[in-house]
Amino acid sequence: MPVKTIEWLGRCARIIDQTRLPTEIIYLDIDNYHQMAEAIKKLCIRGAPAIGIAAAFGAYLGIQDFPENHSRQAFFNELNQAIEILKSTRPTAINLFWALDRMAQTAQKSKNEATTAIKKELLLEAQKILDEDKQICRQLGKNGATLIEDGFTVLTHCNAGGLATGEFGTALGVIYAAVEAGKNIQVFADETRPLLQGSRLTAWELMQSNIKVTLICDNMAAFVMKQKLIDCIIVGADRIAKNGDTANKIGTYNLAVLAEKHRIPFYIAAPISTFDLNLSSGDQIPIELRDADEITHIFRRRTAPYQVKVYNPAFDVTPHSLIHAFITEAAVIRPPFTHNFQKFLK
Amino acid sequence: MPVKTIEWLGRCARIIDQTRLPTEIIYLDIDNYHQMAEAIKKLCIRGAPAIGIAAAFGAYLGIQDFPENHSRQAFFNELNQAIEILKSTRPTAINLFWALDRMAQTAQKSKNEATTAIKKELLLEAQKILDEDKQICRQLGKNGATLIEDGFTVLTHCNAGGLATGEFGTALGVIYAAVEAGKNIQVFADETRPLLQGSRLTAWELMQSNIKVTLICDNMAAFVMKQKLIDCIIVGADRIAKNGDTANKIGTYNLAVLAEKHRIPFYIAAPISTFDLNLSSGDQIPIELRDADEITHIFRRRTAPYQVKVYNPAFDVTPHSLIHAFITEAAVIRPPFTHNFQKFLK
Repeated sequence: MPVKTIEWLGRCARIIDQTRLPTEIIYLDIDNYHQMAEAIKKLCIRGAPAIGIAAAFGAYLGIQDFPENHSRQAFFNELNQAIEILKSTRPTAINLFWALDRMAQTAQKSKNEATTAIKKELLLEAQKILDEDKQICRQLGKNGATLIEDGFTVLTHCNAGGLATGEFGTALGVIYAAVEAGKNIQVFADETRPLLQGSRLTAWELMQSNIKVTLICDNMAAFVMKQKLIDCIIVGADRIAKNGDTANKIGTYNLAVLAEKHRIPFYIAAPISTFDLNLSSGDQIPIELRDADEITHIFRRRTAPYQVKVYNPAFDVTPHSLIHAFITEAAVIRPPFTHNFQKFLK
Repeated sequence: MPVKTIEWLGRCARIIDQTRLPTEIIYLDIDNYHQMAEAIKKLCIRGAPAIGIAAAFGAYLGIQDFPENHSRQAFFNELNQAIEILKSTRPTAINLFWALDRMAQTAQKSKNEATTAIKKELLLEAQKILDEDKQICRQLGKNGATLIEDGFTVLTHCNAGGLATGEFGTALGVIYAAVEAGKNIQVFADETRPLLQGSRLTAWELMQSNIKVTLICDNMAAFVMKQKLIDCIIVGADRIAKNGDTANKIGTYNLAVLAEKHRIPFYIAAPISTFDLNLSSGDQIPIELRDADEITHIFRRRTAPYQVKVYNPAFDVTPHSLIHAFITEAAVIRPPFTHNFQKFLK
C-alpha cells in the first residue's frame, strides 16, 4: 500500500482521509480527541478494526496534554469524557467499544501511579492495539488463504482491506495472502453505495497491489453470480453475535442471500475483537442510520428530488445460517458457530 | 405529471431530457432521426415503451422532409436507413424493434401511393403507437391494481413510470391505478445504479403525484424485505421470452432472488409489445453493455480509480420461475407462462 491508514507521529495520529480517496491523497494530523471523534463520525477513518485503533489513540489524545499538577481524579474525568465522546461516534462496530474498554482498563490498572506514568501506559496500549492488529490481519489472511484456490475469483463488498485496519486488511488480507502464496486471484468489487467504499477504496487498494479487480454496481452481483464468475465471497464484519449473526456494511445480507441461491461459499473475515459474545443474536446489534444526504448527494451534487424521504441504514445483519465460515486469526471457524466460537475464541 | 415524456409538435417530437431530471427540467425538440437516435442512445428518453414511441417518430423524421420529386425507391432507402440507425441504438428492449417494424409495415402497406401519402400514413402510425401506449398503460394499471391491497407497500426498481411510457407507466401505472381506486399505497424506490433512474425519475414522479415514496440504495432492498416492510415488488420489462424469462434493468434479478427468499410476490408489468415469443428463453436476449464512465463518474465527477476495469451490463434476465405474474393490458397472466402467453397474447 502506498499509504498508511493510521500511524503515530509522536504527538499526533496521522490518518489518510478516506473520504477524499481515490482522487486525492490527503493526510490529517489529529492531535485532540474531538477531532478524532469527528474523523470517525465522518468516515475519514472507517472499517471496524481501524475505528478501534483510531479510538484508542483518540483516548490517549484526550489526556496527552493533561497538566501534571492537577488531580488524578480530574485526569480520570478527562479520560472518561474522551472515551465517552469517542464511544458515541458510531454504534455498530464493536471494535470501537472493545478498544476503548482496553484503554479504560489500562488506565485502571495503573490508577495509583503518577498521571505521567498512566499517560505512558495509555500510549503504549494504543500502539499495542495497532501493532497487534497488523499481526492479527497477517495471521487471519494466512488462515483464510487456505480456502482460496489458485484461479479463484472472489467477490467482496465495501472495504475490508488495509484501509479498514492497521494494514493488510481482513477480507482483502485473505486475498493478499493467497496472492503472496503464489495463487492467481481475481476480484470483483461491489462499488458499495452510498459511499462507494468498494469503488473508491477497495478497487484502488487492489490496483495498488496489482491484483486484477473488476468494479461493479451492487445490483450487478446477482447477474455476475448467475454467470458463474464468482468462486467465493469474502467480506468483513462490524459485529458478530454469539450465534454467528453478523452485522456488516449494508448490502452484505443481500450478497449472502444471493450466495445461497447460487451455491457460492460465503465467508466472513474478522478479528476476534469483532465478536460480541454478549449478544445472543444479531437482532440485538444496533444498526446505525446515517444522514439522507449520503444518498441524495454525491460529492455535494444533488442526485435525488428535493425533500425526498430516505432510509439509510449503514449496516445489515446476515443470519448465521447463510455463513459458511468465519476466518479469524485463531482459526477458520465452521458451524455450529455457538459451539465452535467457545472452542476457538478466548 | 407536470411533464410529458414525449409529444408531437407538428414538425418535431418534444421530449423531456431525462438525463437532467430531477434538478433540471429541460425539453429537447427533435426534428431529425440522427438526433432521435442520439437521444435514445444517451438515455435522454428511456424505458422500453417510450423508446418504441420515440423510435417511431424518429422513423417518420427520417422522411419528413423527403423531396416530393424524388423516386419512391430513394424514399424507401431513406426510410430504411433511418430505421436501421434507430434499431442500432439499444439492443435489449424489444419495443424498439416492434415499433420500427410497425413503421416499416405501414410504409410497405401503402408502398404504391405517392410519397406524401406514405409520409402521412407514417406520421399517423407513430401517433397511433403513442396513443395506444397511453391506453394500454391505463388498462394494464387497472388490471394490476387488483393485485394491490389497501395499505400495501410496493418496492420498485428503475423507472417504469410515466417517464418510461407515453404516460402513466407500467409498474408505476399499477400503483397510480391502485391509488386512483382509493387505496393507500406506499412505495420504496431502489435508486438504481449506475444512472439512478429510481432516485432521479421514480421518486420524483411519485412525489409529483403525492404518493409516499422512500428512497433506498439498491443494496438495502434485502434488509428492507427482511424487516417485512414490503408487500410486493413490481418492475417493468425490456423483453420477455416465450417461457417468461424477463430482461429488465440490471438489479431486477437480484430483487427476484430476494423476493423468493422473503416470500414476497414478484410481478412484471409490461405491455404485450414487450413480449418476444420468438425467443424460447431469456438466454437468447441480447444484454447491452454500456460505458465504464457510467460507473466511474457521477455527473462527470470521477468516483473510482483511474483505469479501473469495469463491468457494466445495463440489464439482467430474471428466470420465469421467480416471477409470480405478468401484468399486461390483456390480463394478469400467471404460470404456466408458455401456455398462458399463447392464450392471452395475440
